Amino acid sequence: MNIDGTHYRTIWLDDDGWAVRIIDQTQLPHVFTTVRLTDVAGAARAIKDMLVRGAPLIGATAAYGMALAAREDPSDEALDRAHELLLATRPTAVNLRWALDEMRAALRNRPREARAAAAYARAAEIADEDVAICSAIGDHGLPLIEKAAAAKAPGEPVNVLTHCNAGWLATVDRGTATAPIYKAFDKGVSVHVWVDETRPRNQGASLTAYELGHHGVPHTVIADNVGGHLMQHGMVDLCIVGTDRTTWTGDVCNKIGTYLKALAAHDNGVPFYIGLPSPTIDWTVDDGLDIPIEQRDATEVTRIAGRTDDGEVVTVTLTPDGSPAANYAFDVTPRRYVTGLITERGVAPASAEGLSALFPERAPD
Amino acid sequence: MNIDGTHYRTIWLDDDGWAVRIIDQTQLPHVFTTVRLTDVAGAARAIKDMLVRGAPLIGATAAYGMALAAREDPSDEALDRAHELLLATRPTAVNLRWALDEMRAALRNRPREARAAAAYARAAEIADEDVAICSAIGDHGLPLIEKAAAAKAPGEPVNVLTHCNAGWLATVDRGTATAPIYKAFDKGVSVHVWVDETRPRNQGASLTAYELGHHGVPHTVIADNVGGHLMQHGMVDLCIVGTDRTTWTGDVCNKIGTYLKALAAHDNGVPFYIGLPSPTIDWTVDDGLDIPIEQRDATEVTRIAGRTDDGEVVTVTLTPDGSPAANYAFDVTPRRYVTGLITERGVAPASAEGLSALFPERAPD
Repeated sequence: MNIDGTHYRTIWLDDDGWAVRIIDQTQLPHVFTTVRLTDVAGAARAIKDMLVRGAPLIGATAAYGMALAAREDPSDEALDRAHELLLATRPTAVNLRWALDEMRAALRNRPREARAAAAYARAAEIADEDVAICSAIGDHGLPLIEKAAAAKAPGEPVNVLTHCNAGWLATVDRGTATAPIYKAFDKGVSVHVWVDETRPRNQGASLTAYELGHHGVPHTVIADNVGGHLMQHGMVDLCIVGTDRTTWTGDVCNKIGTYLKALAAHDNGVPFYIGLPSPTIDWTVDDGLDIPIEQRDATEVTRIAGRTDDGEVVTVTLTPDGSPAANYAFDVTPRRYVTGLITERGVAPASAEGLSALFPERAPD
Repeated sequence: MNIDGTHYRTIWLDDDGWAVRIIDQTQLPHVFTTVRLTDVAGAARAIKDMLVRGAPLIGATAAYGMALAAREDPSDEALDRAHELLLATRPTAVNLRWALDEMRAALRNRPREARAAAAYARAAEIADEDVAICSAIGDHGLPLIEKAAAAKAPGEPVNVLTHCNAGWLATVDRGTATAPIYKAFDKGVSVHVWVDETRPRNQGASLTAYELGHHGVPHTVIADNVGGHLMQHGMVDLCIVGTDRTTWTGDVCNKIGTYLKALAAHDNGVPFYIGLPSPTIDWTVDDGLDIPIEQRDATEVTRIAGRTDDGEVVTVTLTPDGSPAANYAFDVTPRRYVTGLITERGVAPASAEGLSALFPERAPD
């Protein structure tokens, strides 16, 4: 993605070739600033405090966290501790465990002195693979937008609704849910994106609006409450969202509120698609409602950061003193409400059969 | 309602017996302050700028606005201008037109010198009627909560989800959706309320949490995205919301996002009730999707007011510069998703037959 003319991934090696640079996404959209990670504890903090977020980027950051750990102490014990520390940062996204297991597989049975280099190499591969996966998701999703465009009156844009940020900033580059949108826009298809603000952390209003705006894609920010009304009135042609974990049977765990939009899409005959990179598939869980749902701090609901008219970023309290809040971070959309899963190998029905046909080497017996 | 030991209605005559006092709800929950209205223009501004809001309170404020107009100039022309000015403030709530028509009927065919006194008398009646209606809604809704309580394990509270503020602050006293909750709580039924924050104006987090807290009712503020997850996991026993306009056929227009919660309730077998005072019924519209939906300023989405740690109330910007926003204020829940309409005459099915049976004198031929 280009930010003010410079191409950025969301994670990269610093000029010294070993420290890791990320964008501090908690400061967006108000301030674009990067942070240097020099040890596994810093990588874990960056994930836990959501300087980086989005299932694919969490995976890539965890991979580089293992590389930082291997550089410092390549012993089995130290790598086990690093694996454990990183795994505990976020319970829901399955890419985290996938990336950590990939790193462990790449380092085990290697001499200690070779582990750091192998770790950096595998982390770089994981990041590059994510970029390739997102690009392929874009290629497979593009025809869905083109088909919607063909059904519109001339000059009418295709209206896509998305929730949270499953964009460039959730991945290493391009995004999952946004990849087809960027491909369509770059190809000259007229497209407009309804951006759910996505309370409580406002990743839509803060991040998706930011990256769509920098890319020049027409978009409109809406409160999370609005999508149903838009769909009732024919103002949404299709929905595309991301996922933090999708069961091999097709149940989709994603940012809290996704389920409500899927219900509205179903009620109004609007197609509801998921941008699904295969590392996000959980091949061990049958029922999405068994996925552990992270509960985050209530202050994410009761307080919010914004920019004053003087340009200062401040955090303010929204609720009365003494009113508690709850903060469930994800929900599960049952497969029956999902029109299709846009993977890097093509669009699958949201079912065990659909995913198993595309990924036969991973499907349970 | 009691605020710090003092009983308040939301609208009352000032000590001089003619000016009108309201609570400035835009300042809640941070500051409790009242505003004195001395002319019809001030009453119209108070409605338009949402110092008062909620269908029943809008109606009562419009009625007192007509009284202020009649005091100043009781001519037919002046009263027609006042009617027009007040009617234009908010397009969706039907109580506004109802109250204005009630006032016109009370003043027409009266000598000019008698009109001011008649207007104040009718406005006071409308306010008192609203209190009586809300109390009756509470009486009819109470058994629904008691029935849910009977099905719970001992010590487990009944979990009620509500959206926006259809409470004391939306009415003259007691509220519509909240009336059964207050009656249950006052009777000793263990109850807990999930309070949707209700973006973009946060009437749930600002107003419902405020009034429940002052009354001592256990409650938890949640982002609007959360209700579906709670219902999937059996954490909501019933939903009760208000309405700004309900068609005589049972379609419910209410604060944006209500429809999404109704879909989730339907999907999970959770009863979904509406607190419906009869002045909110539109006996002229058959299809809820024909109700005009107010679009408000986009800055209600892009900016938000909150309290800094120093106690100052400031407004901050949430979105990137250059990202537009849209702000649809209401949506329509089709009758098929409504379990029942809790009116002052009892609980009706959401249908023409249901409402006509309870209000035969109003039903179309």
